[in-house]
Amino acid sequence: MSDLNVSHTRLAAFITATMQAVGLPADDARTIGELMAEADLQGSDGHGVIRVPVYIRRILGGAVNVRPEIKVVEERAATALIDGDNGMGHLVMKRAAELATEKARRCGVAWVGSRYSNHAGPASLYARMPLAHDMVSLYFAVGNANHLPPWGGLDMLLSTNPIAVALPAHEEAPVVLDMATTVAAYGKVKAKAMLGEMMPEGWMIDRQGQPLLDPHRREEGFLLPIGGYKGYGLSMIVGLLAGTLNGAAMGTEVVDFNNDDTSVTNTGQAICVIDPAAFGDTLAFKQRVDKLVREIHASERMPGFDRIWVPGEQSHLKRERHLAQGIAVPASLVRELDAVARQLGVPTLADTPTP
Amino acid sequence: MSDLNVSHTRLAAFITATMQAVGLPADDARTIGELMAEADLQGSDGHGVIRVPVYIRRILGGAVNVRPEIKVVEERAATALIDGDNGMGHLVMKRAAELATEKARRCGVAWVGSRYSNHAGPASLYARMPLAHDMVSLYFAVGNANHLPPWGGLDMLLSTNPIAVALPAHEEAPVVLDMATTVAAYGKVKAKAMLGEMMPEGWMIDRQGQPLLDPHRREEGFLLPIGGYKGYGLSMIVGLLAGTLNGAAMGTEVVDFNNDDTSVTNTGQAICVIDPAAFGDTLAFKQRVDKLVREIHASERMPGFDRIWVPGEQSHLKRERHLAQGIAVPASLVRELDAVARQLGVPTLADTPTP
Repeated sequence: MSDLNVSHTRLAAFITATMQAVGLPADDARTIGELMAEADLQGSDGHGVIRVPVYIRRILGGAVNVRPEIKVVEERAATALIDGDNGMGHLVMKRAAELATEKARRCGVAWVGSRYSNHAGPASLYARMPLAHDMVSLYFAVGNANHLPPWGGLDMLLSTNPIAVALPAHEEAPVVLDMATTVAAYGKVKAKAMLGEMMPEGWMIDRQGQPLLDPHRREEGFLLPIGGYKGYGLSMIVGLLAGTLNGAAMGTEVVDFNNDDTSVTNTGQAICVIDPAAFGDTLAFKQRVDKLVREIHASERMPGFDRIWVPGEQSHLKRERHLAQGIAVPASLVRELDAVARQLGVPTLADTPTP
Repeated sequence: MSDLNVSHTRLAAFITATMQAVGLPADDARTIGELMAEADLQGSDGHGVIRVPVYIRRILGGAVNVRPEIKVVEERAATALIDGDNGMGHLVMKRAAELATEKARRCGVAWVGSRYSNHAGPASLYARMPLAHDMVSLYFAVGNANHLPPWGGLDMLLSTNPIAVALPAHEEAPVVLDMATTVAAYGKVKAKAMLGEMMPEGWMIDRQGQPLLDPHRREEGFLLPIGGYKGYGLSMIVGLLAGTLNGAAMGTEVVDFNNDDTSVTNTGQAICVIDPAAFGDTLAFKQRVDKLVREIHASERMPGFDRIWVPGEQSHLKRERHLAQGIAVPASLVRELDAVARQLGVPTLADTPTP
């Protein structure tokens, strides 16, 4: 069996079908299917269709509410706290991004946090949403499994807690940073395991502080934070902003959702949206972003570099390539997805009709 | 000549006297003296009294406005853009922090940016201000000299662009992260040069990509970002938020204020303040912060670590020690400060009367 090349629309339709099969309303299933396929489209392959088996297993295990009443439980002019009622994180954070955009238009800036949310895929999915309104966004999330001890410690109290920031440009592609506060995201470790490849040194260490290279031994060690103690600090701060502030899980409260099909995760996320119009002319701002991007592109290069990338550019190009040529789903993942399809009685990915 | 041990109040009084001697109004001079001494107090010794010679040189060179009209030029309910009128950054960002705190109390969150500001000392000085009101704060700044090329490049288009985040706890010390997006801040490189010490590998590289260890050769190379390309991305994003969004300098526009005594820097900074009361009960939030801090402290430790630190804790302890025992000013710096005092006709640091 070889890799399967599928269109983004087929991928979205397949995911939607699996979500509907386990009880999600059609609209919600479609929202999740589109957002997860969008993750694969932009090359966030640790967060797209690869997550279907875990999501479905957890929904069938009763860990996730398929008919949530997502609601605002605290609100001020420029803020809101959304209780996700343990629904899929994609639904909660799409709502949060929309609400924050609306509030930012009125107040200049807005901050919307979530609790009782769930894993929502790549951070940049949500940070990118306000770009359509020419707005700037920052996104923070508590990762759904602790893989990181505090600096100098052995207890895994912290996660890869990602940050994403997106800013619109005028003629250039938007600048979109999406980074785990660890050297590698855990999804990348699992992708390596699935591909049968070893990890480079610097991604993980074992409990003796020695490099851990085999992704199948990932349970025996932990991820390394970027910049040593700085990345540890950043991970903790992101967790405090996205989790603790919202009354969501942090530290020992975080549930490892990869190894648990029944517990509520009480996942926390936060999105901050800024309207550049509150700081002057939006077009002039976007042109200043263009100018900076062009200065960076034009930089003299070190030997061995044939181009200089701006954050988000590689995803942007992957997205264009995937739209034109389709997305390659690895054979091992296709087998897993086929098993899910058989279990749920929906067409396999290869047989899913595209709308 | 040996190191001079001085109290924080003497340090503040000396700095205040130098600022007044070059034309700043008494109140403004005192604000700057207190904030700069506070930097030394918390151990940010690359940002305290060590900066007096450069600040004075630039003021005497006409690069900084000693009688600025600092004013809000754009405003929404939860945002403001402050034009610093090329005044000292300390004055501009103290005003920004106060305004953001006031707006956050009404709106839940606020974001205040600056342009035509100047170097303002350590980021945490301003992120810490809202703690007195039980508020959370994020601070971003464009560094005042480019020491960092884009990843794979040789043109120094980016600075150490720091991030600071402060969150209040209940019984524990507040959590305060203050980090340059480079492995080392440039102030630390200069502190090493002043102490006659070599830098550890990983702080700087030369244009051939080789480690640069001698801090006196710092002009021949550049700082390394944390986590490689991630830190480059973070530095760029911080610069976009603190500089580009506000119409302040970024990229090639950044003036190296260490080597220029006449040019306006158009420095940009930004502060975001969040009122935890907008997300639930503030005391309950602060108790959750306590809980996380205690979990981290209690973590099992790796060999070689005798305690686990939470961001801000070392500064907190340095502050207590400096308050009790005074601050040691290195002999080489005392000589420089004595020369400034003689030039301005104010008492030397040793002879400055304490109020």
